[in-house]
Amino acid sequence: MPKKKKLAIIVHSGTLDRLYCAFILGSTATALDMETHLYFTFWGLNVLVKGGLEKAGLPVTYKHMEEKMKKKLQQMKYPTLYEMLKRMKASGLLKIYACSPTMEMFDVKKEDLIPEVDEIAGAAAFLDLAADADITLLV
Amino acid sequence: MPKKKKLAIIVHSGTLDRLYCAFILGSTATALDMETHLYFTFWGLNVLVKGGLEKAGLPVTYKHMEEKMKKKLQQMKYPTLYEMLKRMKASGLLKIYACSPTMEMFDVKKEDLIPEVDEIAGAAAFLDLAADADITLLV
Amino acid sequence: MPKKKKLAIIVHSGTLDRLYCAFILGSTATALDMETHLYFTFWGLNVLVKGGLEKAGLPVTYKHMEEKMKKKLQQMKYPTLYEMLKRMKASGLLKIYACSPTMEMFDVKKEDLIPEVDEIAGAAAFLDLAADADITLLV
Repeated sequence: MPKKKKLAIIVHSGTLDRLYCAFILGSTATALDMETHLYFTFWGLNVLVKGGLEKAGLPVTYKHMEEKMKKKLQQMKYPTLYEMLKRMKASGLLKIYACSPTMEMFDVKKEDLIPEVDEIAGAAAFLDLAADADITLLV
Repeated sequence: MPKKKKLAIIVHSGTLDRLYCAFILGSTATALDMETHLYFTFWGLNVLVKGGLEKAGLPVTYKHMEEKMKKKLQQMKYPTLYEMLKRMKASGLLKIYACSPTMEMFDVKKEDLIPEVDEIAGAAAFLDLAADADITLLV
Repeated sequence: MPKKKKLAIIVHSGTLDRLYCAFILGSTATALDMETHLYFTFWGLNVLVKGGLEKAGLPVTYKHMEEKMKKKLQQMKYPTLYEMLKRMKASGLLKIYACSPTMEMFDVKKEDLIPEVDEIAGAAAFLDLAADADITLLV
């Protein structure tokens, strides 16, 4: 069996625009039968707290476009961030990592996170898998 | 003939600082005879609308430095973003992709885009070429 | 002797959150015996000016969390950015590049930079080393 291609993304951002960017890449990758690894850190880690994905908005520079974008996404019947994440998980090809130093920095406990998180890990875990990946990105 | 090296950048940002970063990398890559692929999405896609590159400014965090930076670039006779893009195209080594889901989200039509765009494509096209690239980045 | 793994990061950002992200990745990489290359450009270059790392704060979107984060980092006895940079240098595995066009754009002279900078270089130097790296990221 040929080895699957591998995508590794550090999700540093917690804003709607960048999360959609990461999740669209991830969803497309799993649809293409690629192994997909999302390592959530900083603001990205904070949106993995239960209810966090639902609250994500746009950064200040684009804040004035937030309502319009959210409305448009609904009109397009675009899946929400959490729906996309669940679909990726259902593919069996997605692994979600929560950055342990960020959890300490923001006082986030394991039980605060959504259950889809696979592993709480430091940066070494990410570097290890990224060194072997075909595509590495930071969002 | 040896295979050319390949650079693939997702241009997610639409601000002056990050666009220059992407375009300087792209220009340098084409000068080094590397294949260069720029995939424009979200705010990046929006600046590919005719007149968009000319309007790009700094994000709110650095807004107070915008006029000074623009003046300095003129003093340095630095090429504008659009001039850089045209020069890269003239090398025959640059391919520009416009993200199709973003176009739907922002109601951007093909005819709204600058003529230098080579292809309207989804994320799969990017992942496909990025998996084979020597350098992948997201700006 | 086996070739060391290689991490190459473009540090475009100059804010606390993104600098910590880059420096944590870099520190972890050197601890894993990986060659680490940090290429500082734009806002990232500006923080390499003497006293710059100490002044880094959060972007406007997260400005309201800056004091709390700084206090928490002190409570955790987390090393400062400059301490982390010095430790990485001490490993002998880190090379720091300052982007020459950015220096011209912001009127930064060589003597303005912290002494840990190894080389003033253009984008070609980065692309050259990144093409050969195992992991490339832009922060």
